[in-house]
This record gives sequence, C-alpha cells and structure tokens, in this order.
Amino acid sequence: MSQTQSQLRLGAIIQGPSGNMSAWRHPDAQSDASINVEFVQKLAKQAEQAKFDFLFVADGLYINAQSIPHFLNRFEPITLLSALALVTNKIGLVATLSTSYSEPFTVARQFASLDQLSGGRVGWNVVTSPLEGSAKNFSRDRHPEHDERYRIASEYLQVAKGLWDSWEADAFVRNKQTGEFFDASKLHTLNHKGHYFSVQGPLNVGRSPQGRPVIFQAGASDAGKAFAAETADGIYTRQETPELARAFREDVRRQLLARGRSADDIRVFQGISVIIGEDEAQAEERYQQTAQLVTVEKALEYLGRYFEHYDFSQHPLDEPFPDIGDLGQNSFRSTTDTIKRDARERGLTLRQTALEAATPRPGFFGTAEQVADGLEHWFRSGAADGFIVRGGTPTAFDDFVEQVIPILQQRGLYRTEYEGNTLRENLGLSEPENQFAVREQQALSA
Amino acid sequence: MSQTQSQLRLGAIIQGPSGNMSAWRHPDAQSDASINVEFVQKLAKQAEQAKFDFLFVADGLYINAQSIPHFLNRFEPITLLSALALVTNKIGLVATLSTSYSEPFTVARQFASLDQLSGGRVGWNVVTSPLEGSAKNFSRDRHPEHDERYRIASEYLQVAKGLWDSWEADAFVRNKQTGEFFDASKLHTLNHKGHYFSVQGPLNVGRSPQGRPVIFQAGASDAGKAFAAETADGIYTRQETPELARAFREDVRRQLLARGRSADDIRVFQGISVIIGEDEAQAEERYQQTAQLVTVEKALEYLGRYFEHYDFSQHPLDEPFPDIGDLGQNSFRSTTDTIKRDARERGLTLRQTALEAATPRPGFFGTAEQVADGLEHWFRSGAADGFIVRGGTPTAFDDFVEQVIPILQQRGLYRTEYEGNTLRENLGLSEPENQFAVREQQALSA
Repeated sequence: MSQTQSQLRLGAIIQGPSGNMSAWRHPDAQSDASINVEFVQKLAKQAEQAKFDFLFVADGLYINAQSIPHFLNRFEPITLLSALALVTNKIGLVATLSTSYSEPFTVARQFASLDQLSGGRVGWNVVTSPLEGSAKNFSRDRHPEHDERYRIASEYLQVAKGLWDSWEADAFVRNKQTGEFFDASKLHTLNHKGHYFSVQGPLNVGRSPQGRPVIFQAGASDAGKAFAAETADGIYTRQETPELARAFREDVRRQLLARGRSADDIRVFQGISVIIGEDEAQAEERYQQTAQLVTVEKALEYLGRYFEHYDFSQHPLDEPFPDIGDLGQNSFRSTTDTIKRDARERGLTLRQTALEAATPRPGFFGTAEQVADGLEHWFRSGAADGFIVRGGTPTAFDDFVEQVIPILQQRGLYRTEYEGNTLRENLGLSEPENQFAVREQQALSA
Repeated sequence: MSQTQSQLRLGAIIQGPSGNMSAWRHPDAQSDASINVEFVQKLAKQAEQAKFDFLFVADGLYINAQSIPHFLNRFEPITLLSALALVTNKIGLVATLSTSYSEPFTVARQFASLDQLSGGRVGWNVVTSPLEGSAKNFSRDRHPEHDERYRIASEYLQVAKGLWDSWEADAFVRNKQTGEFFDASKLHTLNHKGHYFSVQGPLNVGRSPQGRPVIFQAGASDAGKAFAAETADGIYTRQETPELARAFREDVRRQLLARGRSADDIRVFQGISVIIGEDEAQAEERYQQTAQLVTVEKALEYLGRYFEHYDFSQHPLDEPFPDIGDLGQNSFRSTTDTIKRDARERGLTLRQTALEAATPRPGFFGTAEQVADGLEHWFRSGAADGFIVRGGTPTAFDDFVEQVIPILQQRGLYRTEYEGNTLRENLGLSEPENQFAVREQQALSA
C-alpha cells in the first residue's frame, strides 16, 4: 500500500437539508437548502476547511408532484459547482450527469471548462438515469433499457476521453514573435464513428490541469460494476455491512486487474449517513426526532419512486409487502432488488418497508468516538477507500466536521492539509497519459 | 419614452484578448486570455465597477486547425458565467447557446439554475449555430438548413418558456408545521408535444427571480429578425452606419407591434469595437499596430471561416474577389452577403477583402470625447438602445472604462449606480407573467 493509501478519503454530499425526505421540517433545518446560495456556499467552505477531498452533487432528470421535496427545486450540478469553483481553492467538485440524455461533446466540454476554471478539481459521477420518466422530458419514445444504457455510457466515455485528449498539455505555445499559437503536432482530432455516437472533435478546450476529470460511477448492478472497472477512477456505493463492502471492493479491484488496470487505479467510496450524540441515547433521540417527521403517506411516495412512481397507497399498510412484479427493473435495479429481498426474508409489512426505506437508520451512529471507530474499522478491513458523507439530521454534518474529523486526524487516518492542488493529486491517482501521444510514441519505437 | 430609456445601456464582451484574431501577439496582450481565470475575473469586476449592464460571452461548436486562436481553447459560456456568479453582485451574465445541438430541458434548467445562483442576472443569447461543421461533433448527418434552424429555435423557446413557468413565484410554501412543501395549484406541467420536441416537465428549478432569463438574439437575417420579434428581449446586431442601424431598429420595433408586443419590449444593442487615443493620430497608430499583427495568410483563413472553411489561398491575392457561388448561405448568411456585395461594389481584391474582414476599423475611434459623441449620436438618433463593447486593441477596453464612461455619466447618458438587482430590472424590462397563471385567471373570469 502506498503512503497515500494509509489515509481514508472523504466526500461531502450537497443535497438539500441533511437527513431524510422530510428533514426540511426539522426545527434546525434550512428548509430551502437545495436552492439556497448562501447555504451551499457555507457548506462548501466548511468542507474545504475540514480538508474534504470533494463536494458531491447528486442529480435527477424527472420530477412530479410526488417527488422528494429537495428534488423539486434544486441547483443543476454543473452550474452549482462552477459557481463554487471561484469561492473555493482546493476541494474537489464532483457533479452527477447522465449519459442517457446528453451529448458527449457538450458534456466533455462543460467538464473540461469547469476543470480549467477550478484548476483541475473536477470529477464526473457518471450515471445512466434510473428514472423512466426522464424520456418524457427529452423527446424520446422510451427510456433505454438498463444494459443498453451502460453500452451507451461505455461508448460515451470513450468519446469523452478522446475529446479530452484533443490537445497535449504543452500544445499551446503562444509565441508572440513567431506568431505560432499552438504546435500542430500536439492537436489530435478524434474522428469517432461508433454505434451510438459520431464525434469528430477536436474539443475547443485545452487539456485539463489534472489530465482529465476524475470519473466516478455510482451504479451497483453488474453492468454498472463492469463499466466502473473499465473506465472509472472512483465508485460511489452503499453496502450494508463491512463484509459485503469488502467483498464488493475486492470484486471491483479484481475486475480492474482482469482488464489490465492496476487495482490501485480506483477508489471505492461508501456512501454513508451519520448521526452523532454525546451518548448513544442522544443519537437515538436525534434519529427519532428526524424519522418522525416522515408520515406514512410520504414514505409510500418515497418507496414508489424506486418502482417507477408506483402508487403503493392502493395496498393495505399492515399486510406483507405486495407482489408488484418486475416494476423497477429498468430503473433502480439493485435498490429494488434489495428492498424486495429484504421484505421477503424479514417478513416486513408494506408500512414497515416504506418507513424503513424513507427513514433509514444511519450506518454510523453514536458518539463521535464510535463513529470514528466505525470508519476506521471499515477502512482498515478493506471495506472502503473512503466515504461520501451525509448528515442523518440537519445538524449532523456540522457534528461530523467538528467532532469526528479531529479524531480521525489525531489517529493519522485523515489529512490535516491538502497534498496537492488537483482532485487527482489529492485522491492519490496518477495522471492519465494522452492516448494519441502514447500511440504516436509506440508507432515511433515500433 | 420612459425614464430608463433616457440612458443608454452597455454590455462587455468576454472573448480572449481584445482586438483582432492576432491581438494575442500584441505586446500588451494577455495571450491566453480566453482560458485565463484571473483575466476573466478581473474583467468581470472591472465591468461591474463601471456599472455595465452585462457581460456577454459568444460561442461556437466547431473548431479546426484554421480557427481563430482564441476559439481553440476557451471557457464554455455556462460554466464561465456560473463561475462569475458568486464573485459579482449586480452585473448581468449573458451566455450564447445554440438551439440546434442541445436539449431544451437541459438548457432551460441550466439557465434557470444559474439565474437562481446569480439572483436573477442571467441572459441567454439564442443562436442557431452558423458553422456547418457543428453537425460532425453531434452525431448528425447534416447541419439543418438556415430557415429550419429558426423553426427549431422558435419551438425550442416555446418549450423553454413553458418550463420556466413550471412553478409560480410563490409556489414553495415550506410550512414546517403542516408539512406542506409546495402549493400544488402553483405547479404547472407543460406537456409539450410539437414538431421537433416532446417535453413533459415540470422543470426541477423554481421560478427565476426575474421571471425568466432575458432572451437575446444575434442573427441579422430575416428569419433571425422575425424570431427576435416573436420572442426576444434584446438583440445583438452590427450595422455599418447610424442610418442603417436606425432602419434596423425601427423594423424590429414595427415587427414587435405587428405581433401584439410593445415596441419598448425589446432593447437593440449594436456590437461595437472601440479604439481610443489622446488624439486621432494616436488612435490610428494603435489601430495600425494591432492590424499589422495579422498576416495575409491568417486573414485568408479568417475569411474562409465565414464560407464553410473555404480555402481562399488557391486564388490570386491581387485579383478581384473570386466567385465562389453560394458557399456560406447556410452558415453566416448575412455576413457573407455583405462581404460579397462590398467586394463587388467597391471592386476589392481578395487581399483587400481578407484584410478588411480580419482587421476591421473600429466603428468608434478617436479621442474619448469623440467616442462618447459617436455613442450619444447613435443613441439619440434612435440607432440603438445600447452597445455591446469590445476593445479594438488589448488595452482599449480599459481606456473605454476609464475615459469614455465618465463622460457618458457626466452627460447623464449612463448610470452611476445600478437601478435594480436583476438584469431585467437594470435593462428596464418588465417581468413576464406566468403563462399558466394567466390562463387560469382568464378561465376564471370568462
């Protein structure tokens, strides 16, 4: 293990008021957090002060009246992180963006531009849009099926990486005397003609200060994992236990090796929720206070969202979770599989299933020491390279920053200063080579 | 004329080093200005200090090795203006974006999000992409022809405006006691099914602080003007003389009236270039110094860009401008028409045509007093509501801010403080009503 791997890494979620879907009702919550500029700016500065690796912004492309409140009215990720680029200095900026409803030229360009604006601090969490309804906002007849979405994503990333290699790092000479603005031998035109995309290039943005944006992947299905092994630098996942998480991480690392990559080319992040109290009883009280804000009606709506906005209110609340067939297989496949398996194996009612889904108990819970112990255990046992943190109540993120991070730092598990200037440097990832330059080098030496 | 119309309005162009295509070679130029964060941040603050109405960012979706240097490697407009949103307070942020190669849901959403981030300071300069090559970067067989591009744009804007009306201004109640997050009667789902687009909505961003982003239009063809009369709040145009500009402005205003809009619903901006000297001789010297940076080879490339990257170097330089048929009709229609007419009527050679195109004499030229006189004459004679300003040399914008603006202010022609907080307020434009709310109101009173 390299030196940088002796410390865990942290991302901070930006997504409305911390906690569950009804956390906006909490007395301590900023109820408009998802669209409040001061709130996100304060959060970004707080996370940078605490030396977080990155801010992480989730996303979705379809809402209706039953959507989670902080999804109804929120900042779009690229604009939000661009706005934060000039009011932060070191922290990474990771935006979620779907490959199912966008153009690779535009997306590669916006990320490249944001990477220039931020001095190489950008990450892209590649998703394929789980929500069926998205098709209706993008003039499409149908939402592409799950595995096809990943085939699209795979070709999309080939294109994006090709565009990001349009210019070598030292292509722009700008010699005022000779009039040479760029070295033509360092400009590469992609000329991609594939199954889903034809993109000529070159990109009209120079090479990223970190080579290219850091690629995250967030789907836990087999297709998602294979995509990550092929192309990602980071994974966002949520596993129930350290044992499952360790098996997941080892599987991913094996898949990287099978594709000729080094296992250390990827960082596996567990998405976690935390609640901290002076003792366990206080943490429990804080959990209950936030959980009780969620009515069973709202919980049913929350559950329905994973199943293509299925209306669960038509079923009796206190009977076993109903059989609704394959709904959700083409949207949140791994999540719906888990919900159904869990309900079956534990014999849960619909009410219990809905409330558990909408008010999950945080995985990291108790005193600051206990939470730090948990993180240390997961990290040291190989269950995760790092964590992407959400508060389980509106004030839990503050508690995490103020109480847990200092403990991690005392234990030598977390940085006290940023190691580098780019996200890639801070994550200890190597800078990718330019594919065209490599190919020319190989041709020369052949 | 209303009180606000007694003063002219100003936009500032952000686009690499000020001056011609080779201005980056000027001793005073920041040669990487198009991709330099400090440079654009300084320019934005300078323009805000000078009370400019807005920053204006042009754009393009296709480059090749012959492109203008500052187009090869530049910030993408949405990310650039988002980055400037939190380091400025009052100045408007106008981004150019094409309706020919993008999705209305995504674009409406990014502008809406940027409008929230900036407190209602956003404008969208709607273009339809003049460059044929753009199709090759977006998996398209062909670039849509000129008039079709405007039909697409027209439907696109209908969709965008419908999405921006998804939520009424007071839709988000956020009542912590009752649990009511929004008032369902103030949520409107567009359900657009048209010729080019099917977009359901609603948008996942609340109503803009200025109702909706300010719409600019920049094409001077008949289709472009008709589009502006239908849908725009502002026009960017370039006319040679105050007489032509006045005729253009009057035509636009008449077209608004014919569509049932008020003539005062639009602001016509002349795009201008300025060079200022202590006397005319010094201004001429400054012009010549910058013009001489452009070689005839570069000028031919520059000219070729308007004609689908036609290679003019195959023609003799000192013979009359060659007949190249209809090239350019489907890209820069009005510009190529003007170039050809001019060459014919004035009997210009290819060399003269190319150098005139690549090193145009600034329309506003001379001492600061002379430039202020020119602006006052254009404004008072009804040739323009305002001007979008570019320096004709790398330091000319500084001269404009330091010397011309104070004169305009002394003459009562320009503001000394912003009138409002939003771009719409500062441009003296009324806030649009929500189309759905208006329709419901009409249904109630019918």
